Amino acid sequence: MNKLLIVGTVAFDAIETPFGKTDKILGGAGTYIGLSASFFKLQSAIVSVVGEDFPQEYLDLLSDRGIDISGLEVVKGGKTFFWSGRYHNDLNSRDTLDTQLNVLADFNPVVPENFKDADVVMLGNLHPLIQTSVLDQLTAQPKLVVLDTMNFWMDCALDDLLQVIKRVDVITVNDEEARQLTGEYSLVKAAAQIHEMGPEYVVIKKGEHGALLFHDKKVFFAPALPLEEVFDPTGAGDTFAGGFTGYITQSENISFKNLKNAIIYGSNMASFCVEEFGTQRMERLQKEEVLQRLQQFKALTQFDISLGDDNEDEE
Amino acid sequence: MNKLLIVGTVAFDAIETPFGKTDKILGGAGTYIGLSASFFKLQSAIVSVVGEDFPQEYLDLLSDRGIDISGLEVVKGGKTFFWSGRYHNDLNSRDTLDTQLNVLADFNPVVPENFKDADVVMLGNLHPLIQTSVLDQLTAQPKLVVLDTMNFWMDCALDDLLQVIKRVDVITVNDEEARQLTGEYSLVKAAAQIHEMGPEYVVIKKGEHGALLFHDKKVFFAPALPLEEVFDPTGAGDTFAGGFTGYITQSENISFKNLKNAIIYGSNMASFCVEEFGTQRMERLQKEEVLQRLQQFKALTQFDISLGDDNEDEE
Repeated sequence: MNKLLIVGTVAFDAIETPFGKTDKILGGAGTYIGLSASFFKLQSAIVSVVGEDFPQEYLDLLSDRGIDISGLEVVKGGKTFFWSGRYHNDLNSRDTLDTQLNVLADFNPVVPENFKDADVVMLGNLHPLIQTSVLDQLTAQPKLVVLDTMNFWMDCALDDLLQVIKRVDVITVNDEEARQLTGEYSLVKAAAQIHEMGPEYVVIKKGEHGALLFHDKKVFFAPALPLEEVFDPTGAGDTFAGGFTGYITQSENISFKNLKNAIIYGSNMASFCVEEFGTQRMERLQKEEVLQRLQQFKALTQFDISLGDDNEDEE
Repeated sequence: MNKLLIVGTVAFDAIETPFGKTDKILGGAGTYIGLSASFFKLQSAIVSVVGEDFPQEYLDLLSDRGIDISGLEVVKGGKTFFWSGRYHNDLNSRDTLDTQLNVLADFNPVVPENFKDADVVMLGNLHPLIQTSVLDQLTAQPKLVVLDTMNFWMDCALDDLLQVIKRVDVITVNDEEARQLTGEYSLVKAAAQIHEMGPEYVVIKKGEHGALLFHDKKVFFAPALPLEEVFDPTGAGDTFAGGFTGYITQSENISFKNLKNAIIYGSNMASFCVEEFGTQRMERLQKEEVLQRLQQFKALTQFDISLGDDNEDEE
């Protein structure tokens, strides 16, 4: 089986949405990526850090999914990264109520020996120097390196970010981040400019409005599945990244055609994540449900217009 | 050839976007619908009203497209409906600067005799009583009646609007209008409620984020084509409606499968409309360009994941 190396936070989240609020629950980009990728046939490892306050139960949850956590450092006497946020009524925007970096402040990622030759590397949203350090530890060039980042690093670590962006094959950002990174309002123009920064593939996530995959002059679009209710968007982008990289790792195929499938898989996984608070839905998700919903994605997007003659299919 | 009957405004617009501004130019829902539908093999007629100030050149423009304008009343001494608006920087919202109803205030639609048996009827955005009057004049049940409306009529003529909604097969509204009409934030729930008001098909337009087609429990999504630049969104929704109804009229096929194609055609036509001010792009659009861009829509959305075995296409 191919290897997927994940770096990303493993954390506590406290979330408020119009539907309710949680106490400290399991969260973090690495967690969501790992859970999502665990639905594919692969070996995965998470490189991250938690404090001594992190429950064994959560560590077991990751291990039970077959995720190698030997690169998940537990800092004695340390406290786990904590994020708290409140979503607005439309669930499209949120306020951060509290961020406690704790053990993340001095995080030095250590890639497990047997993942230094990973086939695919998913650099979750973290300081670009941490992402760089992970790349520097690899002993073989991965088939694909995917980087996720956010506006925060554009504000306070832009030079470091641009350095690591140069070294990756795929970048995933949301629409506002793509605009901030390039100064271009048009996502088509923004993607073209990000291409020039290095990545061969640019994924622009638009939340409930789906995701765009840009490559050369080509573009592909995966919609978000229209849901009766979005309950909690936390982790949706990371779950997307986990589905995206999980599928690529499993299929070992780095073609544009296959990356199109990968963003469909990413959107598919994300559509489950938002149905319940935190990681709840992903924890009880079954593989059959993933395949069933993939059928819904097909029905949602596939059509059949013949182009040989514009009238041919009507007569 | 099948007949498409269009009712909608024929008007003067004055538009300001971040890219420039126009004097009074040709506008109106009926105009955009008619121009867009003229790319299909059909007979069409516009029922509308203008004033004596309306230039012969504009009337000729419509006639030259093969549009029957015998139902386009020219009121002696009257002034044509005028709308003026300014778009915000993101082009997703706009302020109305001026609205002069003029001859529209006393408009009594008269359906031309030879279009009283139209195959498809497109009720463009107008007072619901005008839309009702058009339906009342028909001598045969059309194969499909499509209604477009807006929040304004929900605010000031809701009862009349609900009456006409009962009588149509398809309704097209934007996301905010669907929410206002139903009080549901979720578009899936909103569509289900609008179904219960009468229409078998509900189209929810999301502007640059595409359009959703709901039917029974089924849903289909057509993205907007990602463009380098949106120049002027005026008329995009009407151009969408013209492509949607034009394709259906031509193909004479009222299946869900064909309505999926129709919203792809609608999105395709709308993608041209926004590239220049007002009707400019639609006036010089060539049929070959329409077909070429349809190919882009295919590339944008079509993928190939086998579902027989989730691993089958990877090995």
